[in-house]
Amino acid sequence: MSRPKPLSGFPEFLPAARIVEQRVLAALADTFELHGFGSIETRALEPMAQLARKGEIDKEIYVVRRLQAERHGAGQADRDELGLHFDLTVPFARYVLEHSGHLTFPFRRYQIQKVWRGERPQEGRYREFLQADIDVVGQDVLAAHHDVEVARVILEALERLHTEFGVPPVLMRVNNRKLAEGFYRGLGIEDHLAVLQRVDKLDKVGPDAVAGLLTRELGLTDVVARQCLQLATIAAPDESFVERVRGLGVQHDLLDEGLAELAAVLRAGASAAPGRIVADLKIARGLDYYTGTVYETELAGYEHLGSICSGGRYDSLAFDGRTTYPGVGLSIGVTRMLVPLLAKGTLAASRSVPTCVLVAIDAEETRDEADGIAARLRARGIPTEVAPKADRFGKQIRYADRRGIPFVWFGSNEVKDIRSGAQQAADPDEWLPPADDLRPSIVRA
Amino acid sequence: MSRPKPLSGFPEFLPAARIVEQRVLAALADTFELHGFGSIETRALEPMAQLARKGEIDKEIYVVRRLQAERHGAGQADRDELGLHFDLTVPFARYVLEHSGHLTFPFRRYQIQKVWRGERPQEGRYREFLQADIDVVGQDVLAAHHDVEVARVILEALERLHTEFGVPPVLMRVNNRKLAEGFYRGLGIEDHLAVLQRVDKLDKVGPDAVAGLLTRELGLTDVVARQCLQLATIAAPDESFVERVRGLGVQHDLLDEGLAELAAVLRAGASAAPGRIVADLKIARGLDYYTGTVYETELAGYEHLGSICSGGRYDSLAFDGRTTYPGVGLSIGVTRMLVPLLAKGTLAASRSVPTCVLVAIDAEETRDEADGIAARLRARGIPTEVAPKADRFGKQIRYADRRGIPFVWFGSNEVKDIRSGAQQAADPDEWLPPADDLRPSIVRA
Repeated sequence: MSRPKPLSGFPEFLPAARIVEQRVLAALADTFELHGFGSIETRALEPMAQLARKGEIDKEIYVVRRLQAERHGAGQADRDELGLHFDLTVPFARYVLEHSGHLTFPFRRYQIQKVWRGERPQEGRYREFLQADIDVVGQDVLAAHHDVEVARVILEALERLHTEFGVPPVLMRVNNRKLAEGFYRGLGIEDHLAVLQRVDKLDKVGPDAVAGLLTRELGLTDVVARQCLQLATIAAPDESFVERVRGLGVQHDLLDEGLAELAAVLRAGASAAPGRIVADLKIARGLDYYTGTVYETELAGYEHLGSICSGGRYDSLAFDGRTTYPGVGLSIGVTRMLVPLLAKGTLAASRSVPTCVLVAIDAEETRDEADGIAARLRARGIPTEVAPKADRFGKQIRYADRRGIPFVWFGSNEVKDIRSGAQQAADPDEWLPPADDLRPSIVRA
Repeated sequence: MSRPKPLSGFPEFLPAARIVEQRVLAALADTFELHGFGSIETRALEPMAQLARKGEIDKEIYVVRRLQAERHGAGQADRDELGLHFDLTVPFARYVLEHSGHLTFPFRRYQIQKVWRGERPQEGRYREFLQADIDVVGQDVLAAHHDVEVARVILEALERLHTEFGVPPVLMRVNNRKLAEGFYRGLGIEDHLAVLQRVDKLDKVGPDAVAGLLTRELGLTDVVARQCLQLATIAAPDESFVERVRGLGVQHDLLDEGLAELAAVLRAGASAAPGRIVADLKIARGLDYYTGTVYETELAGYEHLGSICSGGRYDSLAFDGRTTYPGVGLSIGVTRMLVPLLAKGTLAASRSVPTCVLVAIDAEETRDEADGIAARLRARGIPTEVAPKADRFGKQIRYADRRGIPFVWFGSNEVKDIRSGAQQAADPDEWLPPADDLRPSIVRA
């Protein structure tokens, strides 16, 4: 077999990059667990009937079929057929319905898994990528303070990646569907989704074009169209957006509800992570899925990637014929965020292996003693390997150096820091490396 | 949508069982890293041409195709088509070839990922399951001491699951292909694989039937057939097997090599994990894949599951036309091992959520203060959530109790251990739970 070529859209990390990913995932999981979110994993495959429910996305689904079944001519895709999940929300909704009798509500879970989409690969878009989701799901009802909570947890998690590892800071943009719908209804507009759909194009085509769409296609008056646009241009890092919306003079109960919910998210978000959250009233996030708060998040300096963390409130994530399960959640695009940071060298691992100490050997006959030294170091939590070959010591030091292993152990009681060259007497039952050297860490550019 | 039914062969864990799995995976990963094995993950999909190389397994492969491509009538499976990986060895071999210029050899990696096989589901056999693999791969050569090393690392990892969590102890059975081949060649047999294939049926059909196959189908004399069977029945927990093989009076260089390699594995294994390893000269592990040491592992009391950890030495795991990459490795069937232990209740989690403290609230207006208390506890690493609703305290205690949350916090400075009922004054900047309560742990039956 000749050297295989990479598969476009399926990024794979070398060991050092994987260490960075491991550290990032551990920090995310730790933050989620500190807030009482428990881990679940769902199977990678769901029935096609379940996956295709969202309509638009079906052309990106990967269908999965047993080779044998295929050879026996199963032919057409049918309802029992399976596909790879393209997000973690659809499988989570199915998990909640399937296991609801064994779960306690509100149910708080995080889920870190790969997902697959058959899209054309490009920067920030992959065919296989890792997502890290948190959601809170209630039975029949879910209080609005959970919209505040999930934003705070995610901002805390992303801020930790910033301060601990040097990931760029984020800006989370939040809006509320009730706010927009109430505003449109207050203006006498019936088909609020049709307006939302056109206002969503604001960044792409500009305000004049959107105004044209609203008047021409929906028959709004110029005045009403302009009011819709004025709402969409409101953005603020604090609750001041409420007064600006009020200043537009529209009245509706749903608008009040949306304003109150969005103000609560802003207040808590700004206090948990100052400068990392804004109310941005043009954020829409698709069309028929979310019912209240919606979130998008940009990485400073990487805005061209699009949102690296999105989500929202869905009042009927799942429904089993009797009970409704409303939820709110956010999803971090881990691969989308890490691939460019690793490519640019913004994040790198301090070494390419877990090993802290290489035990050198001067002859194969002493391998057993070297193994004994290594076992004593490992017993105290020090990652250690024994040189693969009794070579010249210079070669063994080079073996360590090429992997970034900081220490080489000689004989029964000598250890050398190969970065400084300092060598010292040491007892394998007592010596400890500096805490920073014990495990590989993330170093900043 | 009505309640979805489970998909046979795709086990999914409830949150408490997932906590057990998380602890087990963390212990495995930690042991592997202490021995200098670094983590990698490979994409879930490989070209069918690559997956089908092993021949026999192809009917179990899941073919994956974009729904859109399918609708446009791609039709027949072709070489560029993709399938889900059915083990972690084939993708690892591809990874080594693809990235060899960026890796350092011997390359030591562990890999914990799901794999998929379209087999008929039954106990111990799933269509989606988790494997934890370690391998060491060399460039052109790989010293025999790595066969010893991987056995020792795996035995240490499995022993840790036994002592820390109460997973039953294991018995690893080891053999060496060179030993059998050398023995057969020493008896003048040319087609050693044909003999191995029939001797492999010993446990299923018994010695007389195997003797019959050897004489009838391969034309061996009764005496030679009996010698082959005598070799296969040798098993010993120490190096004494060497003398017993010698006692059969067969001479061959390859036999000597196999005996020496197997003796080294036994010596190190028995010293690292006494009583957990035996030489068992009937172990074959398939036919044309392994070239030296082969390993199988049974879980005490769960022998009916088959091997929960297998592997071996393969002298040409990968070949790129110029360089050969010999390797040796072992694969733990994590799902196969955990599903029955969880079902029987041998392993269980101390609670179903990460949360250690629930902060109660007496009115929604005090939610902000409760959030403040929770933040101070989390800042010191204590997983904390705030009650979802200002309910009667009895109801809030029940909320904690149903999830196994051990502590409920009242007001600004009172904490109650809801198991004992003991309530005490506490400062949210100083109070610490007992170390055992901080995070959920595995409790034994």
